[in-house]
Amino acid sequence: MKELPVASVDRIIRNAGADRVSEDAKEALAAILEEYGTKVSAEAIKLCKHAGRKTVKEEDIRLASQRLH
Amino acid sequence: MKELPVASVDRIIRNAGADRVSEDAKEALAAILEEYGTKVSAEAIKLCKHAGRKTVKEEDIRLASQRLH
Repeated sequence: MKELPVASVDRIIRNAGADRVSEDAKEALAAILEEYGTKVSAEAIKLCKHAGRKTVKEEDIRLASQRLH
Repeated sequence: MKELPVASVDRIIRNAGADRVSEDAKEALAAILEEYGTKVSAEAIKLCKHAGRKTVKEEDIRLASQRLH
């Protein structure tokens, strides 16, 4: 947990147009993105195994992401 | 764009249980998370302005994330 750097998440919020961002807001978005990334990854791993592979590929991530939307 | 380090995203996929992960898969998930983070941020900035504030707070991020689910 806490894998995504807060500075990277801060840049994402600022690139979206924010001038001022609280520290709590950055940490909240980092946690939300990590949670979403974990869900997509778990689904991608299932799809990878289902396809009889051991290496998670881009196609697993893409299909997993579609299924979670 | 390309704000999230691929190494961080790799750890998220491995923490979810993957043994082997292709480089394309890591980059795809990094792009997906950045896109999702940008959507949440844009919505949070709208909610922040709506509340008459200039600083994006945790509550803006949380409400924005709920609205996008």
